[in-house]
Amino acid sequence: MTGTLISFEGIDFSGKTIQASLLNERFKAQGTNVLFLREPGGTEISENIRNVLLNDKYHKMDATTEVLLYSAARAQMVAEKVMSHLKSGGVVICDRFYDSTTAYQGYGRQINLDFIQRLNEFVTQGLKPNLTFLLDLDPVDALHRKNKNNESLDRLEQEDLKFHQRVREGYLKIAHAEPNRFMIINGSSSIECIQREIFEHVNSNLKF
Amino acid sequence: MTGTLISFEGIDFSGKTIQASLLNERFKAQGTNVLFLREPGGTEISENIRNVLLNDKYHKMDATTEVLLYSAARAQMVAEKVMSHLKSGGVVICDRFYDSTTAYQGYGRQINLDFIQRLNEFVTQGLKPNLTFLLDLDPVDALHRKNKNNESLDRLEQEDLKFHQRVREGYLKIAHAEPNRFMIINGSSSIECIQREIFEHVNSNLKF
Repeated sequence: MTGTLISFEGIDFSGKTIQASLLNERFKAQGTNVLFLREPGGTEISENIRNVLLNDKYHKMDATTEVLLYSAARAQMVAEKVMSHLKSGGVVICDRFYDSTTAYQGYGRQINLDFIQRLNEFVTQGLKPNLTFLLDLDPVDALHRKNKNNESLDRLEQEDLKFHQRVREGYLKIAHAEPNRFMIINGSSSIECIQREIFEHVNSNLKF
Repeated sequence: MTGTLISFEGIDFSGKTIQASLLNERFKAQGTNVLFLREPGGTEISENIRNVLLNDKYHKMDATTEVLLYSAARAQMVAEKVMSHLKSGGVVICDRFYDSTTAYQGYGRQINLDFIQRLNEFVTQGLKPNLTFLLDLDPVDALHRKNKNNESLDRLEQEDLKFHQRVREGYLKIAHAEPNRFMIINGSSSIECIQREIFEHVNSNLKF
């Protein structure tokens, strides 16, 4: 495998999608053969699975179903797109990858972590990112970004907050366990600062 | 758990769906609180997953994606329908359950059997059928039932035959490993003979 896989992780509103897009644009501008994928999605089958996952009607979806659907969408993306692009020597940028499953379904929904790890290995055929950027943000700040105000939180938002606090702590544990792969970034910095930090880290850590 | 779970297994055209339906009718006629479910399906979410799985356009679906989608559909069916019906003391009849995954994806597509077993346990929350009928049929006979003739097989049918031979052998291994749960039935017998055999086995082995 001669290519490079870079993933972006973090809770919603941490700013990871914009940073993944900026890095993608940078690679394109310098003529690198780059493929940008979002999860869940990236293939026709995976986008169809995404439609089932994110359908508002399906509020009765079980946590077990949820983790398997995210994993199915990822499995197809890896088999159909990621593997061949890496084999051709290209760069793949993933807006979320298997660490999202460990953080959200493992730490957030408290599904057995050992099973999640086996599932992740099965789904990715053992593939690991060369580099993962974790945009770390306090869920309270994320919620304020979402609501664009500083009002006090209602009951559902409080519940949501507890969930996202578990996800955030999960992400930090995962990152601390693999310091060579992860770069933890303060998500409350400005877009420009974070962008500079990421570009510098990519330039000094990866060879193209 | 006070209810009873009965599953029907076998390759396509082995006659399991008709036998599952006949048993369902029998239970209904005698006033038993019975729920008949087909896999993949049984809930709105699972039927939607079924549409992704069985879409003819998706010939590029990876075996990894496939096993996770079947499992996701089952997980939702168990969580939303099977558990509550069993808790209420009713009978659930499943036209396919997790043994299909072991036989088709494990033995047929040769996915790691140890992983399949963990996946099955996760999906079913450890639930096992009280009784499983395996309708055993030679895949050559199944293909002739499908084609309704005795012509020689083309290349794709030959490949298909090898796959179904692995599935059939897999089913037999699973059944022999759990003789108390399984009843193996000769699928080449007449519908009426098989029906009688199943009714007698249910009457003598299960208390209602």
